[in-house]
Parts: sequence; structure tokens; C-alpha cells
Amino acid sequence: MTFASPLSMFDIAGKSALVIGATGSFGSAGARALARMGCDLTLADMDAGKLETLADDLGGNAGMIETICAIPDSEASATRIVDAAVQAHGGLDIVFIATGLNDVGFIEDQPYEKWSAVMRANLDGYWLACQAAGCHFADRPPDRGRAKVVVVSSTHGRHGLPAGYTAYCASKSGLDGMVRALACEWGANINAIGPTVFRSPLSEWMYSDEDPGKSTREGMLERVPLGRLSETDDLIGGLVYLLSPASDFVTGQTLYIDGGYTAD
Amino acid sequence: MTFASPLSMFDIAGKSALVIGATGSFGSAGARALARMGCDLTLADMDAGKLETLADDLGGNAGMIETICAIPDSEASATRIVDAAVQAHGGLDIVFIATGLNDVGFIEDQPYEKWSAVMRANLDGYWLACQAAGCHFADRPPDRGRAKVVVVSSTHGRHGLPAGYTAYCASKSGLDGMVRALACEWGANINAIGPTVFRSPLSEWMYSDEDPGKSTREGMLERVPLGRLSETDDLIGGLVYLLSPASDFVTGQTLYIDGGYTAD
Amino acid sequence: MTFASPLSMFDIAGKSALVIGATGSFGSAGARALARMGCDLTLADMDAGKLETLADDLGGNAGMIETICAIPDSEASATRIVDAAVQAHGGLDIVFIATGLNDVGFIEDQPYEKWSAVMRANLDGYWLACQAAGCHFADRPPDRGRAKVVVVSSTHGRHGLPAGYTAYCASKSGLDGMVRALACEWGANINAIGPTVFRSPLSEWMYSDEDPGKSTREGMLERVPLGRLSETDDLIGGLVYLLSPASDFVTGQTLYIDGGYTAD
Amino acid sequence: MTFASPLSMFDIAGKSALVIGATGSFGSAGARALARMGCDLTLADMDAGKLETLADDLGGNAGMIETICAIPDSEASATRIVDAAVQAHGGLDIVFIATGLNDVGFIEDQPYEKWSAVMRANLDGYWLACQAAGCHFADRPPDRGRAKVVVVSSTHGRHGLPAGYTAYCASKSGLDGMVRALACEWGANINAIGPTVFRSPLSEWMYSDEDPGKSTREGMLERVPLGRLSETDDLIGGLVYLLSPASDFVTGQTLYIDGGYTAD
Repeated sequence: MTFASPLSMFDIAGKSALVIGATGSFGSAGARALARMGCDLTLADMDAGKLETLADDLGGNAGMIETICAIPDSEASATRIVDAAVQAHGGLDIVFIATGLNDVGFIEDQPYEKWSAVMRANLDGYWLACQAAGCHFADRPPDRGRAKVVVVSSTHGRHGLPAGYTAYCASKSGLDGMVRALACEWGANINAIGPTVFRSPLSEWMYSDEDPGKSTREGMLERVPLGRLSETDDLIGGLVYLLSPASDFVTGQTLYIDGGYTAD
Repeated sequence: MTFASPLSMFDIAGKSALVIGATGSFGSAGARALARMGCDLTLADMDAGKLETLADDLGGNAGMIETICAIPDSEASATRIVDAAVQAHGGLDIVFIATGLNDVGFIEDQPYEKWSAVMRANLDGYWLACQAAGCHFADRPPDRGRAKVVVVSSTHGRHGLPAGYTAYCASKSGLDGMVRALACEWGANINAIGPTVFRSPLSEWMYSDEDPGKSTREGMLERVPLGRLSETDDLIGGLVYLLSPASDFVTGQTLYIDGGYTAD
Repeated sequence: MTFASPLSMFDIAGKSALVIGATGSFGSAGARALARMGCDLTLADMDAGKLETLADDLGGNAGMIETICAIPDSEASATRIVDAAVQAHGGLDIVFIATGLNDVGFIEDQPYEKWSAVMRANLDGYWLACQAAGCHFADRPPDRGRAKVVVVSSTHGRHGLPAGYTAYCASKSGLDGMVRALACEWGANINAIGPTVFRSPLSEWMYSDEDPGKSTREGMLERVPLGRLSETDDLIGGLVYLLSPASDFVTGQTLYIDGGYTAD
Repeated sequence: MTFASPLSMFDIAGKSALVIGATGSFGSAGARALARMGCDLTLADMDAGKLETLADDLGGNAGMIETICAIPDSEASATRIVDAAVQAHGGLDIVFIATGLNDVGFIEDQPYEKWSAVMRANLDGYWLACQAAGCHFADRPPDRGRAKVVVVSSTHGRHGLPAGYTAYCASKSGLDGMVRALACEWGANINAIGPTVFRSPLSEWMYSDEDPGKSTREGMLERVPLGRLSETDDLIGGLVYLLSPASDFVTGQTLYIDGGYTAD
């Protein structure tokens, strides 16, 4: 084995890591994990106040933390985000994209603008971020080790339920396809994590002991062999695996961290 | 068996069938098949001249043929297309959506507008057409039998190659997800057909006995167990199956008609 | 189009068709469909009495009907079955394998013999039948058109529930893999049909208006977008499609006829 | 986060780990990794001499090493193996099953015994080992943390090529199905790793700079986006992830570590 200890394969200390959508639930949990592992962080998101709060909160652990108040909603903003990371930390090794939007509605009732907004946030934005990252990776010194990209997909990329999720399902399934395409085109490491429901301000009601949360949760858990909904902590191990040298031979995959939902 | 003969399960004579993207290779082959089976046709596409030529060509076989010079690039145009079919033939039973666009380019070289154009044509347009069809289906008399929607996906929805197909792969994978979502939301029959390369003006060069067509084809055929590229005729049997009562219990699927490419 | 009418692509009149597991629910429904379409039939199964009853019942429709009291549980019996079809009808064009066994039990409680029995019936037997058919196909005159093999898989090949189905799930998933492998190895047409629950003597209780059938069904239907359990008639359209020239470019696939279960 | 550092999620020091098929290439690489991480090991395989050599080789790193000269080819032997681990180390936390057999042959040329031997080694043996482990897990004290099972599947579980791999493809696809079924039945963590070709005495020829290894490898690499064949080291990161608390919410999955083969 070329690694002194298997644990060292997961070591990403000193890497320059960019988290896009950093103030969301998975984004901030991922940023916290990367900070604790000693990455130099660049945090990108739309809300300057939340970014500052997050950066302050992580400050004690991380190497250096840069923030940039932007999301990849155009080629210019995506480039700005990547440039911020490169300039702040002298390069870029890790990109974790965790932006996301859902807008529930039956197709007949959903204005085209709402479908489009979901597709732009969940698919176009990821493409723009990957484009900007790819432009940087093309000139990246090989002695920095392999670059890693991880995006946030969903079990909804593979399962069409529930009613009202047409845009969300299409965007996540499309993202899985984009990951496969970039894996092939780049010959580099890009993978997706596919969670089911995890705790966030939006899903907090499903963790309640009272209805409608309780009954909704119990209905959903009939399809979750491990018998519980997810916490963001559940996603961190897979994120670290896919962002570290431990997964150097993995690409184009969607890793479901879903309590067995997709197997049931 | 409730059918006098199994063949009668495939009978769609007298159905009102709308073909969107009717002048393309798969679209026109599908329209011809539906005409021969006695459907009342509505043909939608962008080029009025080609539409007329096609309608004339099919005229001897079909019941009645309506044409509408439009593609589903907005809610208004999608509604116009569906309305044209409903008004021309007193209802709508079958929707076959076969529009499509590809724009090959490495992600770093591809302007966002080109990615967006592919996504709009291959995903947004399908969603708009389904929205308009769904609005009509909501009030459709049940005694017309089950409505059927078939869309054109691709093996590229499941496989990320070749380089330069990021937009195409994402759009087709996204379309598969949209089909699953609408199957669940509607509780109705919507399915995709997933071809590999089939003969069209764009692919004709790959059928040549001379390079680069010959060597490109031979390289590709190493992954096609049935040992040849496809003709549009190969796709008609699956189309008729998925548009007829023979498939009344099938929904949310992508049927690969690919010579075994996805199995290899 | 090389076919005068698309319906003629589904025509299999005069074909020599072998149904293995002919007296089961799907087997006999398939045999009836093939008889009505004018195939020369060979019916194989274990129970001579049931075979005779079935042959008598179908006699008015079919060309000629041969019966053979055997299932493919050894190379010798598989060869005997195929030889019976070849000799009775001067060749063999269609093989439909619909044998099957389930034995429900938690893995800790299930004797190895019971696991083995399921695997032998659902996987080894199919392999043996394909081996015998393949030996015949190797010398088959090409002017008979393409030979077709269809096997019966299940949604359980893709979904691991319910508890107690370990053997069944493994056997059906293994069968899907065997189909892909033979598609590649043969370069010929072999496909699977993946039903969910369909009406049979074993499942009849689930169609009851009284518990436990009613509540079991209602629980299951939460995952079936089309909102009902299946009848064998639902499977016939797909069977005819996959056994006829209409699917000449389809191989290595599992076609789910499941009311949308796998999409949900 | 409940973990002080994300790296500690991958910590498995002190766990009682059983490796079945320990002297094979992936088995011994996995055993070495587990030894270095401080597991108490039980090594099971058929060749006593190789087992001793491996145990000696690992001795400096591991806690305690037990060997048992057996493979799970019957309920009795599977129980003996699990009992050996439980008794040697006072319990069992981790089971890694890496036995395997291939026997290449066209189906028409392959005696049933050879098909059966592959199925017994690659599927029955895994089932027997899981049965024995499951019986132990049923009484396992919950304060030991979650038990973990990882099995070795293959890209051949999803892809049917090359010719001659019918048994291997069916066995690995069946294993994926067994993993999904046990994930659902147990509500516990069982997952598969799906490698493509990795270096072993059997595959060493494909790593040669001379033909036929060179040309075979180059042909294969056309479908591997990361552009190389695999080393057993490539598989260790995923193995550690799936055997450690880092993957506590992952079950029923097949993790492809394949250089992007399944995405291409």
C-alpha cells in the first residue's frame, strides 16, 4: 500500500476547498467538516450576513477562510467564485457544490418560471460552477494531487415521487447525467451524493413528534430500511471519502446515503 | 383475455395523435407509422414547408391530418399545439414528442447560451408540451381509453460519453427523471424511448463505407451486441407498443432500443 | 418502412414457439396469446394433466400443439425440451421461459436447501434452457428470421423488499444479469419482462375485498402509480412485442410492466 | 457534529473483523488495511499455508489474528467461520467477504457443473456467510456500534460483456440483488463494492507492456475515463468507508470503484 495507514488516504489537510451554497444545511455541515480537517476554505453563497456568521463560527478550526457573496448564476459569477478561491489560497483542489431549490407544484399548476428557476438553481448553476472549475483545472499543477468535485443530487433523481416534484426530479436526474458526462469528458473525479430527507430548516417539521410531521415521517419510513430520517452528519463520511485521495479511482457515480431507500 | 386477439391490443386506429417535432427523422417515421395505423394526426414543427410536404406524403394513409407550425417553446405555444390537435380531431389520445437538439462542445469551450439552448429544446420543451397535454387530459372523457405520452430519450441519458455531450447527457437524463415524476404525479402512461445512433441527416455520415464514418461506426459497434447502427424503423415497434393499449400497465420507463448498447 | 403496416411487425403467425413453465399463470396466458396469434406451440411443464388440459383448451386456436412433460432441471431435460419443439415443428423461433419458485423466509431461518431450490428454479433452470436453445440456434437457418427469447424477471430484481425475499431477489437480479450477458455473448435477442404482483392462484388473496388481502394490497398500491395490481393480460402486450420482429433491435433489457412501481 | 473530527468517523480500531477469502488479492489487501487500522482479525480461506503466511505478514500491525481454514461452502462451515471470529475476539463487528471464482466459457460449451461452481462460490457462499453472520448479529450487543458487511461485486453485475462471462455476470448481478434484499430484511448495513479489473495473479498479464496484455488493456481502457486499470489500493478507501461508522446511513448499495467504467 502506498499509504502509510489507510486513514491517511482520507487526509485533506491543507487543501484549498471551495464550498458553493455554503450556508445551506449540507453546505455548512460540509464546510465545518472540511474546516476541522484543516482545509483552506472558500465559502460562497448569496447572503453576506450568513456567510460572515458561518466564517466566524468555523474560524477556530480552519486554515484560512475566504468568503464570496455570490452563487453561480452566470458565467461571470461562476468565474468570480472560482477565482476567489484560487487567489485566496493559491490554487483549488476541492469543489463541493450544495446549492439547491425546490418549488413544489403539479405540472398543470406550475408556471414555467418556477420550473425554470428550479432547473437554473439545481442544474444550470452546477454546470456553470463546473465550467469555471474546469477552466481552472486545465492549468492546475499536477503535483497538487487529483482535484475533486462533489455535487448534491437526491434519491429524487431516481424515484419520481412525490406528486409535485417534477422539476426537482428532472433537475436531480439531469445532474446525475451531467456528472457522468463530465467524468467521461474530463477523465477526472466528479461524483454526486444522493441523500433522502435530511434535517434542515425546511424539513425540520418532518422530525416532529406531532402531526403532520409524525405521520408524514412514518409513511416515509416504510421505505427506509434503516428506520430513520437523516441528519447532515450522515452525509459527511461520504463527502470526505469522495473529496479525499481515498476515492481517486471513483468517478461518475451517485453515492446514495439514504438509509437504503433506493434499495427498498 | 379481454382482447379478441393479442394483435388488437396494438390497434390505435381512429385515435387522435399529436406528433411534436414531426419533421425530424424519428418524428416523421413515427408520424408515418401512426398514419398507416389509421390515427387522426396533428403534426407540429417549426418549418411550414417541411410540414406541408410531410402531410402531403402521409395524406393517403391517415384519417385527417392537421399541421401547426410551432414547437413548445413557451406555455402559449405549447397550449396552441395541444389545442390545435384537440380542435382538429375532437380530442387527444396520443402525444409523441420527438423534438431535439444537440450542440457538441467541451464544457470549458461551450457558451452558456449553447448549454441553455440544448436544455430548453430537450427538457423545457418536453415539460411545456406535457404541461399543456396534462391540462387537456384533466378533462378528457374516460371513455376514450387511456391517454399515452411517449418522449424521445437516449442512451446518453445513462452513459456519459462521448466528450462534448455534457448538455445532451444532462438533458436526456433529466428527461428520464421527468418521465418518472409525471408517471407518479399523473398516475397515467408516460414513457421514454432510448435509442442509440439512428439514421438521420445528421448521422448519415456514420453509415458510410468510407472514413471517417466507417472507422467511427466500427469503434461504436464494439459496444453494440447486435452489430449494427439503427434505422428509424427499429424504433417503430416500441413506439406503437408504448402508444397503444398493449402497454396500459407500463409507465415511467425508458425503453432502450439500442442493439444492446446499455447491456454491454 | 420495410413493413407494409406497423401492425405486421408484431405478426408471429407460423412461428415455432416453446413455452417453458406453460401451466403457470403467466406461462399459460402467454401460451394462449401465442396460440391466438397462430404460432405452432410446444408446451413444457411438470404436470402432465395440466399440460393436456391447457393443450385442449388452446387447441382451437393454435397451429399444432406439442406437449412435453419436463422442466429444465438438467442439461438432459433442457435438451429434451428444445428437441421436442424442434422436431414437432421443424425448427424453433421463440422461447418463452416462465418457470418460477419462491420460498419466503428470513435468511437466518431458511435452510440452504430452500435457498438452493429457488436459485435452481429461477436461475439455473433458465440458464439450462438458454444453453439448450443456444445450441439449437447456432445451426438455425437465417431465413427463419431472428430467434427471440423472453424470460420472466421481477421488480424484485431491482428492489430488495419485502423481508423474506432474499432468494427471490437474488435469483431475479441474477437473471437480469444473465440476460445482459447472453445478449452480449450471442448478439441475439434475449430480454426479460419484470412484472410486479399479477393475479395467480398464489396471489389471488391479494385481490380480495377482505383483510388481510385488502390491507396488504392497499399498502402495496401506495407504490404503484397506476393504482391497481396486475392481471396476466397486462403482460401480454410486452411479451408479443419482445417475441416479434417489432423488437428486432432490442436486447439485454428488462422491461418493467409494473404500473410504475420501479419509477416511484 | 457528534464526531470530534471527521477522520474519527473512519476509525475502526479494536473492531473484530472477519475477512472471508482472505488470501485473495482484494481479500489480503483488505485484511492488511484492517490490520493497520487496529482491528482484531479473523482470516478465513482454504489454503492453510497461505493463511499462515498472511497472518505472519500482518502480525506486526494487527491486534490479534485468528485464522480458520475454511470457506462458506455449507451452513456448517459458514457457522464455523463466524464462530471462530466471535470466539477469538469476543464478538464480531465487521464482515468482509471477498471469495470469488470465474470460469470463462460460451454457454453452449460450458458444462452445468462449471456454471454451478461459479454460482456456488460467488453467490451461495456469500449467502451462507451472511446467514451465519446474521444469526450472530441477532444477539449482538447494541453497544458495540453498528455491524457492517461488505461483499465484492463487479462491474460485470451491471454490464454483460465480455462473451464467456454468463456465469460471472449472473452471479455478481445476483449478489447485488442479495445485498438489496438483506439491507431491507435486516435494516442493517450491508453493501457491495464493484471493481473493474484490478491487479491480481489472474489479471497480471493485462498490466504487461507486451501483447496480448497491452492491446487487451488498451481496448479495455477506451471505456475507463480515468485511463488506467485498477490496483487493490484503489479499493481500500471505499472498503474502509463502508466498514466504518462513516457509512452508518448507507445500505443496499453497490459502490463502483471502476475509474468511471459504469458511467461511460
